[in-house]
Amino acid sequence: MTTSLPASARDQKPASPLGLHRVLDPLGVLPQAAWRLDPDPAIASDEVRVRVDRLNLDAASYRQLRETYAGDTDKIRHAVLEIIATRGKMQNPVTGSGGMLTGTVEEVGPASPLGLKPGQRIATLVSLTLTPLVITDSLYRWDTKSEQVPCEGHAILFARSIAAVLPDDLPVPLSLAVMDVCGAPALTSRVVHEGAVVAIIGAAGKSGSLSAAAARQAGARSIIGVVPAQSEAALLHESAGLVDHIVIADARDPVGLAEKVKEAGGPADVTVVCVDATGCEGGAILSTAQGGTVIFFSMATSFSAAALGAEGLAADVTMLIGNGYVPGHAEFALDLIRATPSVRALFGRRLTA
Amino acid sequence: MTTSLPASARDQKPASPLGLHRVLDPLGVLPQAAWRLDPDPAIASDEVRVRVDRLNLDAASYRQLRETYAGDTDKIRHAVLEIIATRGKMQNPVTGSGGMLTGTVEEVGPASPLGLKPGQRIATLVSLTLTPLVITDSLYRWDTKSEQVPCEGHAILFARSIAAVLPDDLPVPLSLAVMDVCGAPALTSRVVHEGAVVAIIGAAGKSGSLSAAAARQAGARSIIGVVPAQSEAALLHESAGLVDHIVIADARDPVGLAEKVKEAGGPADVTVVCVDATGCEGGAILSTAQGGTVIFFSMATSFSAAALGAEGLAADVTMLIGNGYVPGHAEFALDLIRATPSVRALFGRRLTA
Repeated sequence: MTTSLPASARDQKPASPLGLHRVLDPLGVLPQAAWRLDPDPAIASDEVRVRVDRLNLDAASYRQLRETYAGDTDKIRHAVLEIIATRGKMQNPVTGSGGMLTGTVEEVGPASPLGLKPGQRIATLVSLTLTPLVITDSLYRWDTKSEQVPCEGHAILFARSIAAVLPDDLPVPLSLAVMDVCGAPALTSRVVHEGAVVAIIGAAGKSGSLSAAAARQAGARSIIGVVPAQSEAALLHESAGLVDHIVIADARDPVGLAEKVKEAGGPADVTVVCVDATGCEGGAILSTAQGGTVIFFSMATSFSAAALGAEGLAADVTMLIGNGYVPGHAEFALDLIRATPSVRALFGRRLTA
Repeated sequence: MTTSLPASARDQKPASPLGLHRVLDPLGVLPQAAWRLDPDPAIASDEVRVRVDRLNLDAASYRQLRETYAGDTDKIRHAVLEIIATRGKMQNPVTGSGGMLTGTVEEVGPASPLGLKPGQRIATLVSLTLTPLVITDSLYRWDTKSEQVPCEGHAILFARSIAAVLPDDLPVPLSLAVMDVCGAPALTSRVVHEGAVVAIIGAAGKSGSLSAAAARQAGARSIIGVVPAQSEAALLHESAGLVDHIVIADARDPVGLAEKVKEAGGPADVTVVCVDATGCEGGAILSTAQGGTVIFFSMATSFSAAALGAEGLAADVTMLIGNGYVPGHAEFALDLIRATPSVRALFGRRLTA
């Protein structure tokens, strides 16, 4: 009888690839917008259950928790447990943000399209804000001094969730850092064509350096790496061959940035914005050739500043909102880091810093 | 001597296509970001001087002025004159917004690329926030009861400004209403391919109906018009042939919207968002087929909601920031309205409402 119960529950559940059947309150909204999800361990035929070993809390959520409870370990643990028990997911009600998790695949429904197998070590690439979750170990191993939360419990992946198998040949922190920004190089690779001049704003960062490597692989003729300071330029200098020209400029100064990009061989056919600073829209647009494309990956991008900025400059540029999801993006980015020692070294320096 | 002065001033001015030479304070920023511009009537060789007859203040700016001065005509006139005299442009310092103007071309520099001729009646399609302006008539004809400001004075267009000749065969209010949204149909026309299924969210509005007409002309196989209420659906019903399917749905409800679009023949290859409501990103993404494109024209679009929403839904969609400028956009939209009686009738009903 006990073994038949999950199977029976499984059969009865109407599975939605988006996880709508897991939404308890309010009914009918998407899991991310829901107040409460059903984290029942019995999976539908297209779901996957993961044995969780670590949560990686979003930086904003972790900061809010530490500040609210003045760093008190017991209170922070209790707050996180309370959120997960109440909501069936780890979504900080104040910041609205979640994070990601790592774990081991435990059970795979026969209709799951994710291609996972029991025993595989994975990371989720969809947010914790939409992932059904139960924690069973009281978080006793978490000292709350970092947003990395060792834990025990389970999580559910839907048919349309995104997860990536952690590779054996790379350290887990490196893989997680790469996966965190893997949408940028994948979309850059789609947009950059053979012979293009590419400007990467924030080229010494994680998404910027991977995007530069992707642009090179896609056949860019010239890559202009823009950085805000000499220290970042030094990182690029050490990464031989990653970019062709290094430009030190304030990306918030449209005229100054565009002039320096021009001196370095611009304007660019494709400009990739990877810096988390506000006010970079005009500079990116002005550094891009008429008929070119700007890809905005920075979450600090203002939609209206970009739209009105292009109009005000009479700039005929295609402006893309950097979608964090491109099929195969994690594998693509991991392959890039394997194939590009300079980027791997740059990630290494950033991870130890 | 007096006639040689403007020519001499003209020769000495280092002309910038973006108007940087007109920026007085702070030096080096773009005209839109400047506190003060130089509205000297002497033009550089690539500039155009326009005899202004009407300002069309941005709605937000006009509302702020009316509310601040409690509708007092003298005070509102004085405030606008003061802004223009101080800043050399009509940019409301509180709202940051401007508007557009109409006037008659007075002098065209020999190197101007805008293709204008003296005597032509034009409308500017770049914002007043970056247009050097002088008012000479104290605005005595403006009753301040509308954002339409009859006036006398002059304005300067740069090489990279955008202006459109007001056509003789269409009423001026209709032409201005069409030009106000002309970026949307032009970009829609670029993106829609032969045989595409297109969903227009806000199809009964100005930009929405023109975008529907543009999609039809570009060879769309099926056009799904989404509207929020029965009254808007009635407008579409009267516009025979503009769309193939009419869907009444709340665009802020992702699941509900996507289901209704699906019932009408979706998901869409191209979804065009033309409603000025917040929270429409998820619904637009979910109504679009994998590999499809979403064009966001609404200024209420949240960059992060779009980027994170697509990732959370594992949606492989291209997301475009609707650029208000596409070369030839005004002529394209005016031709559309001439060729599409149903859209012209719809504009007519909206303008008289």
